[in-house]
Amino acid sequence: MPQKEFKYVGHSVARVDGIDKVTGKAKFTGDLNVPGMLHGKILRSPLPHARIRGIDASKAEALPGVVAVLTAKDISDTQPIYSGRPVIALDKARYIGEPVAAVAAEDIRTAEEALALIHVDYEELPAASGIDAAIAGGAPLIHDDAPGNICGHERVEKGDVRQGFAESEEIVEDTFTFPMVYHYALEPHSVIAQWTEEGVTVHSSAQHPFQVRGDIAKIFGLRQTQVRMVIPFLGGGFGSKSYTKFEPLVVALARKAKRPVRIVNSVADSMVTVRRHGARVRLKTGVKRDGTIVAREAEIYLDTGGYADNGPQVAARAATRVLGPYRIPHIRTDASAVYTNKSSAGSFRAIGAPQVIFASESHLDMIAERLGIDPAELRLKNFLKKGEELRAKLRGMDADLPSSLKTLVRSSEWRRRSKKKGAAMGLACGATNAGATPVSVAMVRMLADGTLTAYAGSTEMGQGVRTVLSQIIAEELHMPIDAIQVGGADTKVTPYDASTGSSRSTTLMGTAIQRAARDLKQQLLKIGAEALRVKPGQIQLLDGAMIAGEMRLSFKEALQWRFGGGGELIGHGDVGPEITGSLPVFWEIGMGSAEVSVDKDTGEIALTRYVSVADVGKAINPEGCVGQEEGASMMGIGHTLFEQMIYEDGQLVNAGLIDYRVPRFRDVPAVFETVLVENEDGPGPHGARGMGEGGLVAVAPAITSAVARGYGVRMRDLPLTPERVWRAFKASAK
Amino acid sequence: MPQKEFKYVGHSVARVDGIDKVTGKAKFTGDLNVPGMLHGKILRSPLPHARIRGIDASKAEALPGVVAVLTAKDISDTQPIYSGRPVIALDKARYIGEPVAAVAAEDIRTAEEALALIHVDYEELPAASGIDAAIAGGAPLIHDDAPGNICGHERVEKGDVRQGFAESEEIVEDTFTFPMVYHYALEPHSVIAQWTEEGVTVHSSAQHPFQVRGDIAKIFGLRQTQVRMVIPFLGGGFGSKSYTKFEPLVVALARKAKRPVRIVNSVADSMVTVRRHGARVRLKTGVKRDGTIVAREAEIYLDTGGYADNGPQVAARAATRVLGPYRIPHIRTDASAVYTNKSSAGSFRAIGAPQVIFASESHLDMIAERLGIDPAELRLKNFLKKGEELRAKLRGMDADLPSSLKTLVRSSEWRRRSKKKGAAMGLACGATNAGATPVSVAMVRMLADGTLTAYAGSTEMGQGVRTVLSQIIAEELHMPIDAIQVGGADTKVTPYDASTGSSRSTTLMGTAIQRAARDLKQQLLKIGAEALRVKPGQIQLLDGAMIAGEMRLSFKEALQWRFGGGGELIGHGDVGPEITGSLPVFWEIGMGSAEVSVDKDTGEIALTRYVSVADVGKAINPEGCVGQEEGASMMGIGHTLFEQMIYEDGQLVNAGLIDYRVPRFRDVPAVFETVLVENEDGPGPHGARGMGEGGLVAVAPAITSAVARGYGVRMRDLPLTPERVWRAFKASAK
Repeated sequence: MPQKEFKYVGHSVARVDGIDKVTGKAKFTGDLNVPGMLHGKILRSPLPHARIRGIDASKAEALPGVVAVLTAKDISDTQPIYSGRPVIALDKARYIGEPVAAVAAEDIRTAEEALALIHVDYEELPAASGIDAAIAGGAPLIHDDAPGNICGHERVEKGDVRQGFAESEEIVEDTFTFPMVYHYALEPHSVIAQWTEEGVTVHSSAQHPFQVRGDIAKIFGLRQTQVRMVIPFLGGGFGSKSYTKFEPLVVALARKAKRPVRIVNSVADSMVTVRRHGARVRLKTGVKRDGTIVAREAEIYLDTGGYADNGPQVAARAATRVLGPYRIPHIRTDASAVYTNKSSAGSFRAIGAPQVIFASESHLDMIAERLGIDPAELRLKNFLKKGEELRAKLRGMDADLPSSLKTLVRSSEWRRRSKKKGAAMGLACGATNAGATPVSVAMVRMLADGTLTAYAGSTEMGQGVRTVLSQIIAEELHMPIDAIQVGGADTKVTPYDASTGSSRSTTLMGTAIQRAARDLKQQLLKIGAEALRVKPGQIQLLDGAMIAGEMRLSFKEALQWRFGGGGELIGHGDVGPEITGSLPVFWEIGMGSAEVSVDKDTGEIALTRYVSVADVGKAINPEGCVGQEEGASMMGIGHTLFEQMIYEDGQLVNAGLIDYRVPRFRDVPAVFETVLVENEDGPGPHGARGMGEGGLVAVAPAITSAVARGYGVRMRDLPLTPERVWRAFKASAK
Repeated sequence: MPQKEFKYVGHSVARVDGIDKVTGKAKFTGDLNVPGMLHGKILRSPLPHARIRGIDASKAEALPGVVAVLTAKDISDTQPIYSGRPVIALDKARYIGEPVAAVAAEDIRTAEEALALIHVDYEELPAASGIDAAIAGGAPLIHDDAPGNICGHERVEKGDVRQGFAESEEIVEDTFTFPMVYHYALEPHSVIAQWTEEGVTVHSSAQHPFQVRGDIAKIFGLRQTQVRMVIPFLGGGFGSKSYTKFEPLVVALARKAKRPVRIVNSVADSMVTVRRHGARVRLKTGVKRDGTIVAREAEIYLDTGGYADNGPQVAARAATRVLGPYRIPHIRTDASAVYTNKSSAGSFRAIGAPQVIFASESHLDMIAERLGIDPAELRLKNFLKKGEELRAKLRGMDADLPSSLKTLVRSSEWRRRSKKKGAAMGLACGATNAGATPVSVAMVRMLADGTLTAYAGSTEMGQGVRTVLSQIIAEELHMPIDAIQVGGADTKVTPYDASTGSSRSTTLMGTAIQRAARDLKQQLLKIGAEALRVKPGQIQLLDGAMIAGEMRLSFKEALQWRFGGGGELIGHGDVGPEITGSLPVFWEIGMGSAEVSVDKDTGEIALTRYVSVADVGKAINPEGCVGQEEGASMMGIGHTLFEQMIYEDGQLVNAGLIDYRVPRFRDVPAVFETVLVENEDGPGPHGARGMGEGGLVAVAPAITSAVARGYGVRMRDLPLTPERVWRAFKASAK
């Protein structure tokens, strides 16, 4: 079968938002000024756990320039809880940094000054500031309705794990820990709210506009159509802007102030707004001596912080994702999201995965070492086959895992380089059941001038979704990309989209927009057939025109022919659960190999070579895919080597750009390679599947295994700070 | 054939905007406050014709609170001419009231104060302040490129008019005049403009948002998508808000002020913004003694005022509409729109029709009298048959004219009452080729909660378009009207619609929305068939649900079934010239009979009985149709008996609610009846055709014929003020 020739898809076309981004023309929420807008600041709790006896805001309210001060009493007419958290602290503060009051003033300095004038009468309560403290007997109860501070729990069971271990010939058991880390999107969270009689308009750095719309409608008793979410460009999301963050607080403040209000977080504010779950994972794996995995038991605790957000979902994913893409007959995993008196955790690129895949892939490497089997061979032996189920009620593996691992082995020159004397080289595999909700609706409108505007609720947050959607439309209609405009999400205008997250946009919104373009194409062909007096099947689309033999009718001419001036064509498309029938819509596949060199005197790890392999199904924009995969790898390098949110006495002590250490350019591996696997077997347009998160999960186990294989020291706790590595090397040398 | 049963269509459902209107919740442009908004006022020329030597705005600019003063020099970077007029007077002022400068200030008083501080150096020019003055030899030239001050000219020719008159057995020739009148929409014109880097947002009381969008884009060199027109409710239009009025001026002012600006006209401002063309019509009609019309010649002059607006179109319509709905073998009509130094005329309910139909129907009555034929019989004899062409290049008559006239004769008890001794009863017929441009696109979206939002560019200006569109959707989808929301026009959101005018919305937007609803229905049926495991054809829609046998699936459940939560369905529909192939899309039919009593001592006319007949094809909302027809009749009563804009020395002297006399409640005829003819033969949904303008045209000739038949005095000049009638009676008594 000859391969289909693409003109737009599969090519690394320039980003459609590139010029606007590099010239500064692209506006982010913090850049926007709504006329009459006030500036808001949030007063945050200085205590990790405290009852709020009362708040005296009278001095702040009296400060000239202050228009409104918001406290819990101002939201007594609302349904104040969403995502398990209050719009603003009601009776208790549950972490240092929790919003207890907010000020709207004519300028930001006045708002800041007013914060100091608000007196909050706190009764300090005993705090539980970590997983251990929170699940210990007699721990302070953070939410009355969550005994044992358990926010959510998920168990996966299959076969009989006791029998499995009895049948196993080798059993390994270890405990791993993973730090709390911050997303570090360059743009901190920003929200502008305008409250009018008719409803509320919110500009926000939100990844999930339609979900925020739903929350705001519920909280304030509005119809969904009365809430308008407008999402300009996002300066990075990575999950930090998933679900509803503090949009309801800004809405409540604007409602009270009767003026538009903008709140732009500082980095320190955003670090206490959301973070990744820290985790402790106890893992027990039983195998046959030939390497066949027989049983796995996992006990996972995730530090959810003061409020739930999507903690229960993270636990649910972790309980499954710890199983890897392997055939395991006997399984029992327990994952618990735990309330602690820390800032709330939430979504973060590949929720629940890096924590447990660090553990499970490290484990597999330890088993390989113990059995004397090559780590790649061990994985190939146990991989799920295409179509095979990981566990019940989950759609079978839809990717060809060996093809990715073989690509990694080949690209990394694993066989040669890992066998070299003193080689410190490791590899790891990740396959995650994407959480993508299969509901996307899209619309395309072709105006009388022949240009096309696409209405898609996907949020452009640097991942390139507007470019990819433009390419899909361009390919379908065979029209130049620069005649296509993909706008931002505006819930008044753009049709419903479940979210921008879970690597879903190319696959799901891509399919919806492809169907919308096809709908419009049918209309064009009908017009073309009438105008050119041919059958629709005789028409070919080429460069924004319809061609039939010698005849050519541009799209613009087609509209003119149809309407005689003015008019427009509308195409719509939607995608629902039918796309795959069961979930996940796709498995996201990422594998990587690392080579390191460790300075034994300082404990510093140098990552000398990293090869990442992503099975993208079909790369709509190869350069975009590579960019995302590299970004994900760098983020993985961050939590592996550097990043951790450090708490002392419940207080985050490294909240800021300087103290919170992320990878720098000189931390980029000297050899850094990404290879795309394109089996065209994904459910998205042209066989695409989701990517962009998979690149994150293999980094930590690949690096720790490289250290273990090269230096004989197995690190079980991240990040691999020089001090920690130095101490481990010291201890192993004894 | 059993008549189709309708549940929503054909019923006088309550207006969907009724509650919002009567509670004051409905917002008009003048009610809107955009944050940071300035208030604008326009400095108007005090001279009818003058060269502008210079403008000194420095004192006004120095006034505290003034943010910007706009003069011609501020628009030198634009294409300043639209609809034949400048954004603001460039080098000349051509009528008293023409905008020569505009101020934006923090409040309206400051803006008003600033106007007085602007010094304009005028060189007064000789003025031509009426048709006669303007077309006289040596008249001052108002526009250099319009010799003879002719703004537009239309000739209709058919057969050989000279031969026609030669073959005629009776020839009558008369001249009629029609006053300049004002629309008297309760809401004067209002505009808010916001200029940003990205483009311009304009809230306006505009009937034709997409046309205004196009003009603003052209003037300011923007792409159409950069211009967003948002149209709230309109407090009446009647054509006064057709095309572009002073939106560009407000945009230019906001651009200069760098702040949003609102300008709300006073009634006096609006009266010099647009009005109906005054007219002089010389008519010559030749007939056989049996009443057969043989030839017609007409010379029509229309007072267009200082700028063209749609004057040429009014002339074009008048040239055709003077022919009536009659078979005339030999025709020659000339209609000229004439520039004069008066405020500009423009669209007004049934453009060009009341002026010429007053003349032509009066003529027919005079002929009937001369020949001793009953006026109804004379008309029946000469009516165009269905399908018969009035003139070349015009779609044939699509209505059954005799059915309307017979309805009028029956309802008015013409045969009995007109024959009574001393009866002062007249009747007249009107048929106008609607100017409706057949381009409308519509979209309907059904949200996950089963409610439907319709996106239609039609402007709700009191005519009830949102109600009618709701009924059409409700009927198509068989869903309750209160689950349907029809929003206002917002060119960013609503698809293209040519205009709201020419009685087109029910027929054209109605068809587009019906097609959109059908598109959505197909999607629902597909879901229903899958969910209920039946064939789409086995499903009936009933009250917002799909029924198959015992099974019922509500629309909400259907969306849940389809998407599993969230999602939406989008239906779209469009209509283009194919709807009828040639123009007009429909003929608009209005007939009326009047009975009067004249106080010979005062000249005052009392209209004792008026019966109006409208052929609406199918009344989607009968009460709405009756309301519009009554409104049109009252408007006709206005220009027949009371209304006229009185100029003295180029100055309008009755600009205001008190001095400009419109019909009052006590002027409503004691017996006032409207009868709808429903032959279901229109091109719109369920056989509807446009209405709402037709009721206007028969009033003046019916009343003047009633006076003539009852009192022997034929009035040829409107309005029939007591003084004018008294003088005519006096003269005839001599």
